Amino acid sequence: MLILIPRLHAVYRLKPLPFTRLARFKSTMASSLDLEREIETQNALFNELRLSGSDPAGLEEVKKKLGELKRSLGQAKAKAAADGSAASGSKDAAAKKKGRILLKTPKGTRDYGPAEMFCREYVERIVKDCFTTYGGSCLDTPVFERKEILAGKYGEDAKLIFDLMDQGGEQLSLRYDHTVPLARYLSMMGGTNTQSKLWQVGKVYRRDNPVMSKGRMREFSQADFDISGIWDPMIPDAEIISLVCTILSKLDVGEFTIKINHRKILDGIFEVCGVPSEKIRTISSAVDKLDKLPWADVKKEMTEEKGLDPAVADKIGEYVKHKGGPELLDQLLTDPALSANSSAKQGLEDMSLLFTYLSAYNVINRISFDMSLARGLDYYTGIIYEAIVEASAPPGFKANPPVDPSSAPSPAPKKKASKKIKNEDGEEEEEVDESQVGVGSIAAGGRYDGLVGMFSAAAAGDSKHKGSIPCIGISIGLDRIFAIIWPKWVEKGKRSKETMVYVMAAGDGLIVERMKLVKELRDEGIKADFLAKKKPKLPVQFAAGERDEVPFAIILGENEIKEGYVMVKQQKWEMIDGKKVKILAEGDEKGEKVDRGQLVKWLRTTRTWKEWEDGKL
Amino acid sequence: MLILIPRLHAVYRLKPLPFTRLARFKSTMASSLDLEREIETQNALFNELRLSGSDPAGLEEVKKKLGELKRSLGQAKAKAAADGSAASGSKDAAAKKKGRILLKTPKGTRDYGPAEMFCREYVERIVKDCFTTYGGSCLDTPVFERKEILAGKYGEDAKLIFDLMDQGGEQLSLRYDHTVPLARYLSMMGGTNTQSKLWQVGKVYRRDNPVMSKGRMREFSQADFDISGIWDPMIPDAEIISLVCTILSKLDVGEFTIKINHRKILDGIFEVCGVPSEKIRTISSAVDKLDKLPWADVKKEMTEEKGLDPAVADKIGEYVKHKGGPELLDQLLTDPALSANSSAKQGLEDMSLLFTYLSAYNVINRISFDMSLARGLDYYTGIIYEAIVEASAPPGFKANPPVDPSSAPSPAPKKKASKKIKNEDGEEEEEVDESQVGVGSIAAGGRYDGLVGMFSAAAAGDSKHKGSIPCIGISIGLDRIFAIIWPKWVEKGKRSKETMVYVMAAGDGLIVERMKLVKELRDEGIKADFLAKKKPKLPVQFAAGERDEVPFAIILGENEIKEGYVMVKQQKWEMIDGKKVKILAEGDEKGEKVDRGQLVKWLRTTRTWKEWEDGKL
Repeated sequence: MLILIPRLHAVYRLKPLPFTRLARFKSTMASSLDLEREIETQNALFNELRLSGSDPAGLEEVKKKLGELKRSLGQAKAKAAADGSAASGSKDAAAKKKGRILLKTPKGTRDYGPAEMFCREYVERIVKDCFTTYGGSCLDTPVFERKEILAGKYGEDAKLIFDLMDQGGEQLSLRYDHTVPLARYLSMMGGTNTQSKLWQVGKVYRRDNPVMSKGRMREFSQADFDISGIWDPMIPDAEIISLVCTILSKLDVGEFTIKINHRKILDGIFEVCGVPSEKIRTISSAVDKLDKLPWADVKKEMTEEKGLDPAVADKIGEYVKHKGGPELLDQLLTDPALSANSSAKQGLEDMSLLFTYLSAYNVINRISFDMSLARGLDYYTGIIYEAIVEASAPPGFKANPPVDPSSAPSPAPKKKASKKIKNEDGEEEEEVDESQVGVGSIAAGGRYDGLVGMFSAAAAGDSKHKGSIPCIGISIGLDRIFAIIWPKWVEKGKRSKETMVYVMAAGDGLIVERMKLVKELRDEGIKADFLAKKKPKLPVQFAAGERDEVPFAIILGENEIKEGYVMVKQQKWEMIDGKKVKILAEGDEKGEKVDRGQLVKWLRTTRTWKEWEDGKL
Repeated sequence: MLILIPRLHAVYRLKPLPFTRLARFKSTMASSLDLEREIETQNALFNELRLSGSDPAGLEEVKKKLGELKRSLGQAKAKAAADGSAASGSKDAAAKKKGRILLKTPKGTRDYGPAEMFCREYVERIVKDCFTTYGGSCLDTPVFERKEILAGKYGEDAKLIFDLMDQGGEQLSLRYDHTVPLARYLSMMGGTNTQSKLWQVGKVYRRDNPVMSKGRMREFSQADFDISGIWDPMIPDAEIISLVCTILSKLDVGEFTIKINHRKILDGIFEVCGVPSEKIRTISSAVDKLDKLPWADVKKEMTEEKGLDPAVADKIGEYVKHKGGPELLDQLLTDPALSANSSAKQGLEDMSLLFTYLSAYNVINRISFDMSLARGLDYYTGIIYEAIVEASAPPGFKANPPVDPSSAPSPAPKKKASKKIKNEDGEEEEEVDESQVGVGSIAAGGRYDGLVGMFSAAAAGDSKHKGSIPCIGISIGLDRIFAIIWPKWVEKGKRSKETMVYVMAAGDGLIVERMKLVKELRDEGIKADFLAKKKPKLPVQFAAGERDEVPFAIILGENEIKEGYVMVKQQKWEMIDGKKVKILAEGDEKGEKVDRGQLVKWLRTTRTWKEWEDGKL
């Protein structure tokens, strides 16, 4: 039974394997039979190497390859089984008919295995550390909310909300973001929340069409930081923008730009250009598409779809093409039409103060005042922003474009090729040409001064209720950051485990002695492991320790135990020509005799230990 | 409108406030009017203190109280609004009629605010650190699974699974535990998962009747550690038990005991006593209730409900009353009936080897071999265990009971008073007398050698499929641990924030200078904050810094800036007679002049810094 390559391809794209050596299966037709033959060959090679006493690293290499092949075979077989009677209906139906189940995660979700999670935990650690460095306190809200809490907050996107089944009791929905649960929390606190800076890290849910390789998922992780309360103008705004710059600098995502705009400037422009007030929101959402579509298309949407006077559209076009820094602001401040509009004037004054503060924070060089930035959500009331990195931008984007306010809008990528297709579950979805999309903005947010008050008023049943708390926040897309950082980790051959010591024994296995030493090390906070076999051969133990890339191999022997010492080998791994190579510490090829009683102290003073501690990641 | 005290009570029980001074509102009838009057009084006091130049700590104290009162008022009003027309139907209905929404989290869930999250993050950090110290790697699976993955794994408890609404596409359910998703993952990996030790920390979901104060929730956090693969007998089992002992010791949950039993010993006993094979599982589940019910009740269930011969039940009673350590095992090994039963013999041999290993790990003194432990889930196949701490046990329980195998079953607490009531959403639920329940076991698990194979077989549609991977694991109930630790934190007046430095300024506010210094400190990794006001008064800044209990207050002044130094005050807080008291560093009442260029270095060398670093938690 033949497996179609595009499918196999897809499996690998979704679950990138580090150091995968399956290239040839990607470029040729592979069948279960091919895989079985390859496994046989590798098995023979493995046994040969093992019997000939080959070095453990080499053995491990072959074993890894064997593992990958077996996995492919398993997947191919499962797929073949599931595809078996696909002609007569969907895979689900086919599987059910045979009483089989489909082993997969739900659409738009995925598992993250050990190496990937090691990278993700690293990212989360940095983000959380920056959050507390900026004075934030953690908040945790449930993954689901009462449906009415989420209702009416997301405009058209409300259709993307996951609902829970009515099993008696409350109507519940999975949270769509962290902002609405935060506003619900603040409203419940009745203005007495004692911390103005709150952060949340967790998963949110959208029934969107997933583009997994770009980090667009149905279940994804967001890290939010919000400042609530009545503070002086633009100070919390500057704090948030400085925070996101700090985080992105530490995460090594490459060059990045923070695009900033102000809802009041946009509204002022629309008024000045002559947009009827009832059309302001819909015209705003057309402007928001300027990062993906050329001006001609956006103008067409404004005039043909939304009935705007072409002359008005052209005036808008003159304004929103501008991008720049403080000098663009200076230029706008001298625009007599804008200065005469109270909304625009207020926005420009805010922006001017913000730029002063951003200079104090020394992040002004990261900022692009982008007049086409509009952001979709209705609840924004002031400053809005988006962080874009080069890796996340669609083709053609360059971070920090040279400031030239008079230039025409930069050439936009061609319109995405998309068509409707039916997916495996019979749902209709858009097929996206992924080469034409970046991972999108990796962080975004803005000021939302009315949302908390909306809850307080709705709870009191009084639309004039005074319970508003001004807020400003940022959401960082952790999956998108992971999608940028992970390939770099794979390329650098980063370690994916923190185990420092592998305890092994020659001869009889000395299982109780190994347990005692491992426990002793662990009690001292040293991450240690051993092979869970009673009498394993020494090379097998070495291979296991090397799979974990432990810097210290400790070998116990009966004589050594009697004489009160252990043997320690120090080792590290480096990527050489795209391959992990073990390097023994200089002069340490044979290992070192270390006094058993001094072992913990000795380990901590070695250069190897310090190197791992410093440059662990 | 009067608020019924039991309701107000409930609010406080569910969201324990640190240092709450609302005792009198708990013991007397409180109305919104009472609260409003009290707020007025406190407001007057606050203004008086402020104008008289009272010390900031005192001011802050009054402000805190004021905040708590306002919050109570807000909650009381919201509740009153919601209760308003409760006479004519449920609160939901009443709220809807008025176009209002109910501001609350879904039943059985809750928000965790900053101070609580600080404690929870501390707990998680310790648990994760122990997991990696024992060689574990992290795995993350989606919060929901395809419904068929969870089906048929939880026996009767399947009714507690949360389902998602059918919105087209897959049928999904929220995960019920981490074990089944892990088995699904391992099966998908086809035996090529390269790490045998995997841990998961995250939320799981059960539509159970919540008992929030004891940490029994519908959304709750579990930390799981599992070892998979073919290893030598009882080595992974000993690793897991040593791990849970390490974690519970580090978490300071008080004295704890690990109750251990073996499915094969239990099955052997049932066979030896003459239980018909088709009744073994149901008799086993009756035995499992012995920690909550007296033997007489359990016997009644066996004989009257389940039709077991009373003589057989009495024989079982003789066996399952035993609890003890290695000496109980020795006694059982000499029992001729058990030795003749192959299942029991295998179990006893396993147990004997396990005890040898647990001695090597130096945790044998934590173990209670408890023959009445049966564990509900069907998939266990070997060793099973539960960790009980004194704080989590029902009244009358003592950790590590003196071993006396001949003693009668210890007196069990009286049967829980329970009756069915209708809750606010019209769901029927059991009302539980909470004084009679502990938080339950805080960690539990066992060996499940068949679960992964079950998935592999189901995916292949072949019941004889060979894809089984033996597994053993532990689930740690993080909410239950939090329920034990949190009151201790409150009592000790633990800090709930990590901010080290609060930057303030005299006179003109020096907002740009404050921003620059704060940014400089943060860039150096020093957690720093300032008041987001342009020209705040100095006492207000001090009060804000003290609310965060920062050890360093840095004061900027125009002269000081010109001359190149800053003033630094070192301070700390101690609980004295249940009250937080600020203590200035000795000889530092006036603060210290520090060279601006040396500030970061200077901060890190102070005794205050080192004290916070060492004993931060």
